[in-house]
Amino acid sequence: MTLSTAVVLAARPTGRPSAEHFRIEQRTLPEIRENEVLLRTVYLSLDPYMRGRMNESKSYATPVPIGGIMEGGTVSEVIDTRSPRFRTGDLVFSKSGWQTHAVMAAEELRPIDPRLAPITTALGVLGMPGFAAYLGLTEIGKPKPGETLVVAAATGPVGSAVAQIAGLLGARVVCIAGGARKVDWLKAQGFDAVIDHRSASFEEDLAAAVPNGIDVYFENVGGQVWEAVLGHLNDFARVPVCGLVAHYNETETLAGHSRMPQLMTAINVKRLLIQGFTQRDFGEEHRARFEEDMGRWFAEGKIRYKEDIVEGIERAPEAFIGMLNGDNFGKLIVRVSEEPMALGKGADAI
Amino acid sequence: MTLSTAVVLAARPTGRPSAEHFRIEQRTLPEIRENEVLLRTVYLSLDPYMRGRMNESKSYATPVPIGGIMEGGTVSEVIDTRSPRFRTGDLVFSKSGWQTHAVMAAEELRPIDPRLAPITTALGVLGMPGFAAYLGLTEIGKPKPGETLVVAAATGPVGSAVAQIAGLLGARVVCIAGGARKVDWLKAQGFDAVIDHRSASFEEDLAAAVPNGIDVYFENVGGQVWEAVLGHLNDFARVPVCGLVAHYNETETLAGHSRMPQLMTAINVKRLLIQGFTQRDFGEEHRARFEEDMGRWFAEGKIRYKEDIVEGIERAPEAFIGMLNGDNFGKLIVRVSEEPMALGKGADAI
Repeated sequence: MTLSTAVVLAARPTGRPSAEHFRIEQRTLPEIRENEVLLRTVYLSLDPYMRGRMNESKSYATPVPIGGIMEGGTVSEVIDTRSPRFRTGDLVFSKSGWQTHAVMAAEELRPIDPRLAPITTALGVLGMPGFAAYLGLTEIGKPKPGETLVVAAATGPVGSAVAQIAGLLGARVVCIAGGARKVDWLKAQGFDAVIDHRSASFEEDLAAAVPNGIDVYFENVGGQVWEAVLGHLNDFARVPVCGLVAHYNETETLAGHSRMPQLMTAINVKRLLIQGFTQRDFGEEHRARFEEDMGRWFAEGKIRYKEDIVEGIERAPEAFIGMLNGDNFGKLIVRVSEEPMALGKGADAI
Repeated sequence: MTLSTAVVLAARPTGRPSAEHFRIEQRTLPEIRENEVLLRTVYLSLDPYMRGRMNESKSYATPVPIGGIMEGGTVSEVIDTRSPRFRTGDLVFSKSGWQTHAVMAAEELRPIDPRLAPITTALGVLGMPGFAAYLGLTEIGKPKPGETLVVAAATGPVGSAVAQIAGLLGARVVCIAGGARKVDWLKAQGFDAVIDHRSASFEEDLAAAVPNGIDVYFENVGGQVWEAVLGHLNDFARVPVCGLVAHYNETETLAGHSRMPQLMTAINVKRLLIQGFTQRDFGEEHRARFEEDMGRWFAEGKIRYKEDIVEGIERAPEAFIGMLNGDNFGKLIVRVSEEPMALGKGADAI
């Protein structure tokens, strides 16, 4: 009998979530059956899309029920197995959710090879955020060499991957982030321009950074950044829409001027392409292409990443709430338990 | 020496244009040179895009200068020629603009064969509006058999072609138009549903007409229709944006609630594709495909069209102003001079 400590959805937030919307529970897991494995969560990924799962309304996925375990991707270790596909000690990517242990069907898991990269990257550049960045660029944004690409939340896992992949594809890359610490870090990475969206001169800074206009805006933020970007989009600009973290906590329409006619007019006159997507909509052939390209760039040392790791499952709610305010600096990950010994690149065996 | 009566742009309108923004002038045309022809305008096309050319700001094309002849496509007869490509009496599609005669380079003209179709169709279903409808559907909207397509201004030349082509492609077609006369005419054409956007029950009527949601919304209107449609778009819906006649006369942003976040959220959550386009952006291979498909459908009697013909170049301004209010019923055309004798389908020679 295995106990799992889980974070469940206690109540649906209206607007900004807070501690009372989560509850920590102990749960007894069932015995594993044929083709199932018992997992110990090592790392839990926290991502903005989870805010959508807390709402009652259907987004592109079913909401988490009240009392249900919060959804989330994990790096987990197999600690008991009744599947021929996995041995004890194997590491896998799982959708175990916010809990310390889980029973999962073997077919739902993807093996992780810890000799190829640090295992946390399976939640970041080599995982869902990296895949989303790759798809948005290669399927929708399609930056050509010399074109200008703008991406916000550029220290986050998606934005950071977007900026680096776009640079590898030959684009001129303009990064937007909030606050001097993030901006300084991005400048040190050598991007073509870096702008602080919290600066009073944000709009002027953006204009100065895109003298030839914007050909691709990778949208993962929304709000004020999007409205500022809109005026600089070139004819035939492409806008892959991956997320809108600025709006996830909004509860009502904002009074003010309706910008809808301006947006539609810009789409019409500039022949813009604006397209929403999620990595869930793309099949295995796209994943294979991603893993090949991204794996090669990673192995060649061309992909850097930044992680923000918090300790302990019980800290997941506060870390998640902070992320929706932009408090994290890099890919937000919860270390739920210790990594198995002797992991990491260069280890001969696990 | 040939005199041409022309309508020129007298002043740039702010908002709705009126008679004082146009002026009628007599102009003396130059003698034709090598590879030029002298044309007599038979029909002039009036189209909503011309409103954009009256503004100072660059749209996707250069504005008409103050004192310049208003732009427009024409069906014209060659009345003098120094080009081996055209004989006197030939009929051509030209961009002669709002005038009775023009000197044009032969290379800018497309021949019209009056035995294939009534020559006015070169300004409508077989011309620019039909091509725009065809491109928006085959390149962006891509309705699949059984999917629901909605189009507004459905008695207009673009909307009418969209509705018919979408039906030929197997879509369920919902037409929107303004006023009982247009609605009744559309109902008689046998479309799956027809809705009056001027009705007090418009939103309820739309909801009732799209029980399975909307897969393709062909946008050529904007405004209230677009805002009503937005809530019914299905996951992965496509919105080709061809025009926004509801906004062409707007001079300021409208106070009220900003719908921008809702639009962006819908794009994100429903993975919408919204893309602006003009037929000018597509090359000759697309035109050849259009002429083949549309010519075949037309010859098979599968394409109907409705025309609203006004008499005399001097009436072009008032007809154009009315069109921006939706006063026209069918493709708006000015008969500038009489058709040559013995034209029309079945005539052995011209």
